[in-house]
Amino acid sequence: MSEIRQDVTTKEWVIVAPERGKRPHEHPEIKQAALDELPAYEPTCPFCPGNEAETPGEVLRIPAPAEQPDWSVRVVPNRFAALTPDADTTRTEEGPFFRKMGGYGVHEVIIDSPSHNTPLALMDYLQVENILTAYQQRYNAIKKNREIRHITIFKNCGQEAGTSLVHPHSQLVATPIMATYYHRKFDVAHDYYADRGRCLYCDLIAWELGRGDARVVADTKEFIVVHPYASHAPYETWILPKMHCASFGLFPERHLAELSRVLKDVIFCLYQGLDNPAYNLAIDSTTTYDEDDPYYHWHIRIIPRLSTIAGFEMGSGIYISTSLPEDTAGHMRQVAASCPDNVCAIFNNGPHG
Amino acid sequence: MSEIRQDVTTKEWVIVAPERGKRPHEHPEIKQAALDELPAYEPTCPFCPGNEAETPGEVLRIPAPAEQPDWSVRVVPNRFAALTPDADTTRTEEGPFFRKMGGYGVHEVIIDSPSHNTPLALMDYLQVENILTAYQQRYNAIKKNREIRHITIFKNCGQEAGTSLVHPHSQLVATPIMATYYHRKFDVAHDYYADRGRCLYCDLIAWELGRGDARVVADTKEFIVVHPYASHAPYETWILPKMHCASFGLFPERHLAELSRVLKDVIFCLYQGLDNPAYNLAIDSTTTYDEDDPYYHWHIRIIPRLSTIAGFEMGSGIYISTSLPEDTAGHMRQVAASCPDNVCAIFNNGPHG
Repeated sequence: MSEIRQDVTTKEWVIVAPERGKRPHEHPEIKQAALDELPAYEPTCPFCPGNEAETPGEVLRIPAPAEQPDWSVRVVPNRFAALTPDADTTRTEEGPFFRKMGGYGVHEVIIDSPSHNTPLALMDYLQVENILTAYQQRYNAIKKNREIRHITIFKNCGQEAGTSLVHPHSQLVATPIMATYYHRKFDVAHDYYADRGRCLYCDLIAWELGRGDARVVADTKEFIVVHPYASHAPYETWILPKMHCASFGLFPERHLAELSRVLKDVIFCLYQGLDNPAYNLAIDSTTTYDEDDPYYHWHIRIIPRLSTIAGFEMGSGIYISTSLPEDTAGHMRQVAASCPDNVCAIFNNGPHG
Repeated sequence: MSEIRQDVTTKEWVIVAPERGKRPHEHPEIKQAALDELPAYEPTCPFCPGNEAETPGEVLRIPAPAEQPDWSVRVVPNRFAALTPDADTTRTEEGPFFRKMGGYGVHEVIIDSPSHNTPLALMDYLQVENILTAYQQRYNAIKKNREIRHITIFKNCGQEAGTSLVHPHSQLVATPIMATYYHRKFDVAHDYYADRGRCLYCDLIAWELGRGDARVVADTKEFIVVHPYASHAPYETWILPKMHCASFGLFPERHLAELSRVLKDVIFCLYQGLDNPAYNLAIDSTTTYDEDDPYYHWHIRIIPRLSTIAGFEMGSGIYISTSLPEDTAGHMRQVAASCPDNVCAIFNNGPHG
């Protein structure tokens, strides 16, 4: 029997319909390239070491701990940028209906690793920490630009998730407009704060922790990992910092090491439990001009792409998920419990472990 | 150079970035099954004639004009329904954050044709008219249920568009909640009406027609076909009736023959011009309890699935299109002009043709 659940952070309704998961499919499944079919180094890949000259000039480099290779993470402008810093932000109107501005903004690629065939799921924790450090350093450098209103950091992993290049990478897009999705979440969080004088997300975290492990996958010192009550898709996963902090840019750097363990373990469990699924990851943060706000709370959203966004979602805006988050969270806890000793220790030991 | 454009019907911003269309892709392209590889009749297909007993009981049948086969369109409950009429619509709350109701609703499949391998693009006009008649009859039957608030009729064609079965079919989902997407459009349309006392869409149609053929693909007696100013994806196409009408259910049946010509020709031009792309189609209509409203205006949206919705769209809610609608509309007009004599006549002759 299905349910219709409301997402308290957006007021959107989603349909949870486990029966839909049993549909027959006539189309062949898309499988990700098996990792052992990919080389560790690919001479024609613009992101592989030795081909640094093929990308636009580096804006950030995190050095490797050893000397070979000589970098751990590189950040470069996107060669096929959706937005560029040489456009005009003046808004113009054509008659009463059409408003536009130039394609102003920043679009960068974070090259996650020198290795062509090591996905986030299999990277070591230090490599993941270097990626998070690169994200945050670029966020904080770009937010100083007063034309920029919002910064979205995201990752597309796998063909169904929309990636065009195999080499592990992330992206950052900084826009002169507030992100549409954030706009909706802002309205809800702001109303909640206006009514209760507290952050919706802080209260939600306390509530989920008080409910035991219904939807909680992991509870570490500084973070909670949950499958949200009104998941838009099976295995949708949120990583929330326990401390109140509206902006990813202001999040204390000293917690990035712990975050790297949590993020890697989440992605590893999806990789193990769902056989290397395609997924998207996005960091939801407040605007760049209101970083200290008391009502928003940055977090990471991870959405495995196990099904296609189709006509019903496009037509109605209502998402249909085929799994209950209570079930998928339980599955992920099982996967974590059976991990090798050196992986998921932070998940299995709990906040005081 | 890219642009950031605002959709006047939703206030969403989209990025139009033609440079992004030049990205290299390492993944193989997904091709739709070539039509000549599909049989006209497939014995194992539950939607093919002779297998009527394999679907749940028929709720509507449009007879075929000739006796063989004995039906033109069938409507049946979806065997893997997301929502069912035996659930409870009582809203329950679990603490302060979690609201839900039972998965109440109606989920039906419209079997578009007895032919297994004739897509909408290649159907004759009468067949398309029969489909539209089935859509409207089911819409009007289901809206009488006072628990239902909204009806979404949609079509997924092709693997990237999320279809699971090849045989041409459409779907109808009736929900006890207002569709999220409509909620946003409702707010904007209602504000416009409150300010000006006129329907936003009626004014938009008049404006687009007054601008010549910048974004207008076709202008027929009762309909306008446009590529919207802030298209979310290349070749996004809207079909709008010229007369004000908020609900698809109240649209005069006498205009469905003309609509069938317009819809078939739009889909045919996409098929010809883009080599049989996957696409989604949705009918955007007002709620079922406010069908006479003066501010909304039903219309059809068609979105070819030429690229994947990826992490940026999911993270920010901002869509990136790689084509200007002015360019894609021009391309579609060219395709229509070179059509065989018996196709696209309604497009090429104009409203007074």
